[in-house]
Amino acid sequence: MKLKNLFIASAMLFAVLMAACTGGGETADRAGVDESSAVINNIMTRTSVRRFTSQPVSPDTIEILLKAGMAAPTAKNIRPWSFVVVTERAVLDSLQAVHPYSNLATATAAIIVCGDMQKYDDDILRQYWIQDCSAATENILLAAHSLGLGAVWCGVYPGQERVAGVRKVLSLPGNIIPLNLITMGYPDGEQTPKDKWNPEVVHYQKW
Amino acid sequence: MKLKNLFIASAMLFAVLMAACTGGGETADRAGVDESSAVINNIMTRTSVRRFTSQPVSPDTIEILLKAGMAAPTAKNIRPWSFVVVTERAVLDSLQAVHPYSNLATATAAIIVCGDMQKYDDDILRQYWIQDCSAATENILLAAHSLGLGAVWCGVYPGQERVAGVRKVLSLPGNIIPLNLITMGYPDGEQTPKDKWNPEVVHYQKW
Repeated sequence: MKLKNLFIASAMLFAVLMAACTGGGETADRAGVDESSAVINNIMTRTSVRRFTSQPVSPDTIEILLKAGMAAPTAKNIRPWSFVVVTERAVLDSLQAVHPYSNLATATAAIIVCGDMQKYDDDILRQYWIQDCSAATENILLAAHSLGLGAVWCGVYPGQERVAGVRKVLSLPGNIIPLNLITMGYPDGEQTPKDKWNPEVVHYQKW
Repeated sequence: MKLKNLFIASAMLFAVLMAACTGGGETADRAGVDESSAVINNIMTRTSVRRFTSQPVSPDTIEILLKAGMAAPTAKNIRPWSFVVVTERAVLDSLQAVHPYSNLATATAAIIVCGDMQKYDDDILRQYWIQDCSAATENILLAAHSLGLGAVWCGVYPGQERVAGVRKVLSLPGNIIPLNLITMGYPDGEQTPKDKWNPEVVHYQKW
């Protein structure tokens, strides 16, 4: 762990301990400071990973990631998501060919997070598919990081060319829209998370 | 903890242990099984909470949530988000009046996650604000749950009436779009997370 990461992790641990002290007894009752600090530390140290070792991602690990994805909140409990898991080299190469920024060259797995438009019968509600599938994606990224995997969220929708390319490679039906492609594997080398904290974008009570 | 939650948590812990055994040494090296299981357990047990005790959410806790939100991935590192933190009862009541499904009656805090359209000069890229702000929202929900808070993601955008109402109450400028309103507080009573696992929406190699 690099010095900066260690600093960020230490600062967050301190903040979590502070919150546990000031936030009352319920925090410690439910989960304990250790679980809180593990969760917050995992969120703060997750970063995009684009180079991987040859170590494959096991089916058991993939299933944990999918369960984490499906635990996301979803508008009106519609669960509009579907997932395509790709581990075959030939398919990863075909995806790289239609999505040049997918970083799949050394990846050993990808999960394509899709929205199923047939789950909706309301045009306004249908627009929530992006939010629901994004929440599922973030859950997958966080679960992956906690398991020692590296991953990167590669946008597909709303780029129409990328949507068409991914749809063709994966034989997606017309009602299925690929939102993104999560490229993953075991990281090759150390990663340094960005510090994106910016108090200037926070407002209190109103703008 | 109810029996169902205990079962889900136990099953996930077992799965994480399995993955650590089959996934190779890197998992244990980076984070350890305890951190993985805490993270996965937190993802699996998070659920929407709509009734709260009168215990306030401290400023230190709010800051941890905001830092977690800003640690989310964002397309081209644009970080299009801004946040309005509301803890004053009068403002929470005004938000409830313009957003009847915001569950703010007993909430002690809300964070309104917004997108700043001025951060973009490209019409295609601008559409990623929903995905970026959704990832930030999910980070906040997971961090809140780990700290013993309850929360619920109340959709604002793309409902034009809700957007207009929230904009008016918070005096949001025209370039700021409220994506959602995260209602929060310390949970009043036990919560049971939904089991949303559905292997039928998973496909391998292609559809």
